[in-house]
Amino acid sequence: MEDIVQIKYALDTFYFLICGALVMWMAAGFAMLEAGLVRAKNTTEILTKNITLYAIASVMYLLVGYYIMYSGDEGGIMPNLGLLIGSENAVEDVLAGGDDAPYYSARADFFFQVVFVATAMSIVSGAVAERMKLFAFLTFAVIMTGFIYPIQGYWSWGGGFLSEAGFSDFAGSGIVHLAGASAALAGVIILGPRKGKYGSNGQINAIPGANLPLATLGTFILWLGWFGFNGGSQLIVSNIEDANAVAQVFVNTNASAAGGLIAALVVARILFGKADLTMALNGALAGLVAITADPLSPGGFQATLIGAVGGVLVVFSILGFDKIKIDDPVGAISVHGVVGIWGVLAVLLTNSDATIGGQLLGIVSIFLWVFITSLILWTILKAVMGIRVTEEEEYGGVDLSECGMEAYPEFTSSK
Amino acid sequence: MEDIVQIKYALDTFYFLICGALVMWMAAGFAMLEAGLVRAKNTTEILTKNITLYAIASVMYLLVGYYIMYSGDEGGIMPNLGLLIGSENAVEDVLAGGDDAPYYSARADFFFQVVFVATAMSIVSGAVAERMKLFAFLTFAVIMTGFIYPIQGYWSWGGGFLSEAGFSDFAGSGIVHLAGASAALAGVIILGPRKGKYGSNGQINAIPGANLPLATLGTFILWLGWFGFNGGSQLIVSNIEDANAVAQVFVNTNASAAGGLIAALVVARILFGKADLTMALNGALAGLVAITADPLSPGGFQATLIGAVGGVLVVFSILGFDKIKIDDPVGAISVHGVVGIWGVLAVLLTNSDATIGGQLLGIVSIFLWVFITSLILWTILKAVMGIRVTEEEEYGGVDLSECGMEAYPEFTSSK
Amino acid sequence: MEDIVQIKYALDTFYFLICGALVMWMAAGFAMLEAGLVRAKNTTEILTKNITLYAIASVMYLLVGYYIMYSGDEGGIMPNLGLLIGSENAVEDVLAGGDDAPYYSARADFFFQVVFVATAMSIVSGAVAERMKLFAFLTFAVIMTGFIYPIQGYWSWGGGFLSEAGFSDFAGSGIVHLAGASAALAGVIILGPRKGKYGSNGQINAIPGANLPLATLGTFILWLGWFGFNGGSQLIVSNIEDANAVAQVFVNTNASAAGGLIAALVVARILFGKADLTMALNGALAGLVAITADPLSPGGFQATLIGAVGGVLVVFSILGFDKIKIDDPVGAISVHGVVGIWGVLAVLLTNSDATIGGQLLGIVSIFLWVFITSLILWTILKAVMGIRVTEEEEYGGVDLSECGMEAYPEFTSSK
Repeated sequence: MEDIVQIKYALDTFYFLICGALVMWMAAGFAMLEAGLVRAKNTTEILTKNITLYAIASVMYLLVGYYIMYSGDEGGIMPNLGLLIGSENAVEDVLAGGDDAPYYSARADFFFQVVFVATAMSIVSGAVAERMKLFAFLTFAVIMTGFIYPIQGYWSWGGGFLSEAGFSDFAGSGIVHLAGASAALAGVIILGPRKGKYGSNGQINAIPGANLPLATLGTFILWLGWFGFNGGSQLIVSNIEDANAVAQVFVNTNASAAGGLIAALVVARILFGKADLTMALNGALAGLVAITADPLSPGGFQATLIGAVGGVLVVFSILGFDKIKIDDPVGAISVHGVVGIWGVLAVLLTNSDATIGGQLLGIVSIFLWVFITSLILWTILKAVMGIRVTEEEEYGGVDLSECGMEAYPEFTSSK
Repeated sequence: MEDIVQIKYALDTFYFLICGALVMWMAAGFAMLEAGLVRAKNTTEILTKNITLYAIASVMYLLVGYYIMYSGDEGGIMPNLGLLIGSENAVEDVLAGGDDAPYYSARADFFFQVVFVATAMSIVSGAVAERMKLFAFLTFAVIMTGFIYPIQGYWSWGGGFLSEAGFSDFAGSGIVHLAGASAALAGVIILGPRKGKYGSNGQINAIPGANLPLATLGTFILWLGWFGFNGGSQLIVSNIEDANAVAQVFVNTNASAAGGLIAALVVARILFGKADLTMALNGALAGLVAITADPLSPGGFQATLIGAVGGVLVVFSILGFDKIKIDDPVGAISVHGVVGIWGVLAVLLTNSDATIGGQLLGIVSIFLWVFITSLILWTILKAVMGIRVTEEEEYGGVDLSECGMEAYPEFTSSK
Repeated sequence: MEDIVQIKYALDTFYFLICGALVMWMAAGFAMLEAGLVRAKNTTEILTKNITLYAIASVMYLLVGYYIMYSGDEGGIMPNLGLLIGSENAVEDVLAGGDDAPYYSARADFFFQVVFVATAMSIVSGAVAERMKLFAFLTFAVIMTGFIYPIQGYWSWGGGFLSEAGFSDFAGSGIVHLAGASAALAGVIILGPRKGKYGSNGQINAIPGANLPLATLGTFILWLGWFGFNGGSQLIVSNIEDANAVAQVFVNTNASAAGGLIAALVVARILFGKADLTMALNGALAGLVAITADPLSPGGFQATLIGAVGGVLVVFSILGFDKIKIDDPVGAISVHGVVGIWGVLAVLLTNSDATIGGQLLGIVSIFLWVFITSLILWTILKAVMGIRVTEEEEYGGVDLSECGMEAYPEFTSSK
């Protein structure tokens, strides 16, 4: 019997680590996606932003975020701060068994959680691309990954009030994706649109991405990584029922992405007359975000439809934000925010445990908390260090002004 | 004992899902490989094709393909159509044990199979690159992934006549790779070569790929994904014998790719005097295809040699197809078709269970079925909607005509 | 009980294979990193070098390297040469149990080891980029992966004198990374700097990399692959204690990379006033190398600091090598050599089993063996076939002279 406990513990730990590694890989996906969708002159900076925010998230979540999110039992907004990761499970505690015995490594749990906060932060970087000061962004990342994200994460996943209110969000359409998009929206509002994006007569100028193979690669990476993101969120795989559940999650995650891609491609074709690759990519990502709040309850065909609705939504959302001059170069607010809300609501279609009240409370709480704190933080950063590069720097490209090097020095004359 | 069954089921399911995720990743490999080997002006379109065909395969195989391939027990060509994936294994059925008890999740099985059909379809996209209409291709993908591939897949893996005839094709050198290449060959014949590829005096004009780092990345991705493709095809890992088998498959898959790469590099060096990177990449892929029909029986050194023969073959095959004006921009028909046949035959060298009659029957059946149905389908598509862009569109690049956007708008003046 | 042994064996074998696949993926990481950091005109050649060296390592280690490294029990420098991989574990031997019974597949062990030698060889290719003859490099790869690396690998991991002297190097900061860097240093010394790198008046000319998204992608790939590199080096995962250990290794590997990136970014910002992306990438890699000698003993915060020291070191090391005109285009000698030494020494901080004598003996032995044999080998190659392209070829780019094709034919006019 002890052998059984040992093996189950080992299998669940290994499963968790592999899923976590897949989620870590999503950071590369965001980096490639965003690097492909900005102009060449702003590519080095967005690469620097993406890989550095991942490092910042890793350190801040280790130092404070994880304790805020998981160490509190009191149910308050701000649980006690522990000291670093805390202790690993002792072998005898695991073997003691019982319902409270840990069934996977506490370190593996940390690893899985730390890559989630990096995902939330990655969402922000694309929306504020091409005009924000790099170090203002990185400072925001410190606060977001150390405090803003973990506090709301605690509400749902750490045992806080949203978990008690029955908010149901399996892998985080709301907790991760809407949270990231809310911070991004606040940033974009404070920051304003890119120079030249909106003409004085109200016209909207398309600013095409410089490298679509990179953007496509980024989407494929995210698609792959999402199997870990959703699949790992079952938390356990070592028995028949949970193994079946993880398999269902893989199938649904894939189906929803496929549905989102096809729907967005068809809608864009109807609207624009062409097969719009960037809309198709955003459609796939929308499908992934849409199914994240419940990749377990639907069947494969339902998952395809949930993703397809996400794919339709994202096209109109991207067009809509442009109309109201919210300039989001990569469509992150639409993909992760608007479709994140859809994902949280879609839980109601297939999961009878979810309530409309609980889902709405979750959406409103997460949005308000992250949006307002982010708005305040961006405003402070604007006052203290400035968040926007000068007009001259923006025209010249933030690669030279922020990083001192071009991404493709031999291919383009900068500017 | 029930615990043992539960854990084995969980481990095999998890192994299957991870291998499936690696195969899904091969879709990104094909996308990058093909995007790197076409000209810049046709890159957006081939990216769109690759990621969309993956989505179409996911949906069509969910809706019909899987039932055609696996639900029939009658042995006819066209088994009964079930309704979507069917039911997951009940815990009690698994625990009941016995030889017929399922030992991994039915959903995981679906996931592993769905990524295989996407692989077969990915093979087609490269061969018809740079001149085909996108929506004609996508329509072909619907029929191929929903019907043509699953019907022949049923023959071998679903219990049909090839399985009864002793056709031995472990992971699908024939069933997947030759099938994809046969569809591609039919398409290329109906479509004709690219403008400017073959001169009026019989000369063959090299059309170099626009982005070799992408092509190399794609090859690395395929190499990695192939560990899942072949390794997962053992179907079970949870005991000593099967674990040893999976390990042997990993070793042989790697050895064969290495052998193929080196052989192709050396042959190309002898023929052209230079270290031809694209031949080396195709050599690695040829090694992977060659070992796929039996990555288990050979030893590591034998696998290296089987791959090396594939690597030699692919070079001469690519040159040969060019001589007869079969214009395959990425060499897919040579890599997956010619070497796929070699792979099926190579089984005879190390696996005494295979018979020359069975292997030849498999090759001929798969080729004829897929080639003829594809030929008919391409012909219908040509008549109904047209399959080739206009000459003007081809010179201007299909990115603009089909997708309305360039892949690298700042780096190249289109055309 | 036999069931338990079977499942544990299967789980450990599967874990080993997945970790090995992640390490194989690092070959793609090196290829992308180096392709991003050289000039466009030398990109095809470095891609060819990277993927071919992986193939050569796979074949040479199969043919001879593995036997040199693991089959000797006599303790001499050059143990007996066996014949190819040797036999797989028999089921009955595993079930017989006891402390000597194998607990994972011998083939999986081979697979995990073969990807390590490829990593060591990958380190060399970047340092000698942009001016070395391709076939001289490939010849060096044959000897390095077949003999030089395995002989010193035997000293530590095969039971040789360093293992007896208590040299502690968990996953190979010294055995893999310092070894690779020592061979690279020898090559760079014999080869000399690139034309135009150092001016006649002592000035150092920056030669920017052509494609920073590729370099960033390469770093992300290496970061991901390193979870397999370090995580797999625990060798066993199938019980609570080892599962906890593997989880700690994942956490520390990630933390150290993050620490290295942030430290290098901050130091570079202080020195140059800008957020230097290439230094940040090298900082992340330095963090990974630094923790590799002991990713288990430190806590997460200590790992962050160990990585941060690596990140600081790498910046000054890169600047220092440039001052003494050791021209290493990608900083490989600094990342893997200088920081590799730091990693071996850092073991002393947290692992009380390590001794300063053992660690120093390891560093000196590995460096001297690899450096001196490499120096001899490069010298022989220089005399026999020449190792440097002509000045004209160097200015024109080695892509045309060595490979006969450009990496980006439509984007740049070569040279």
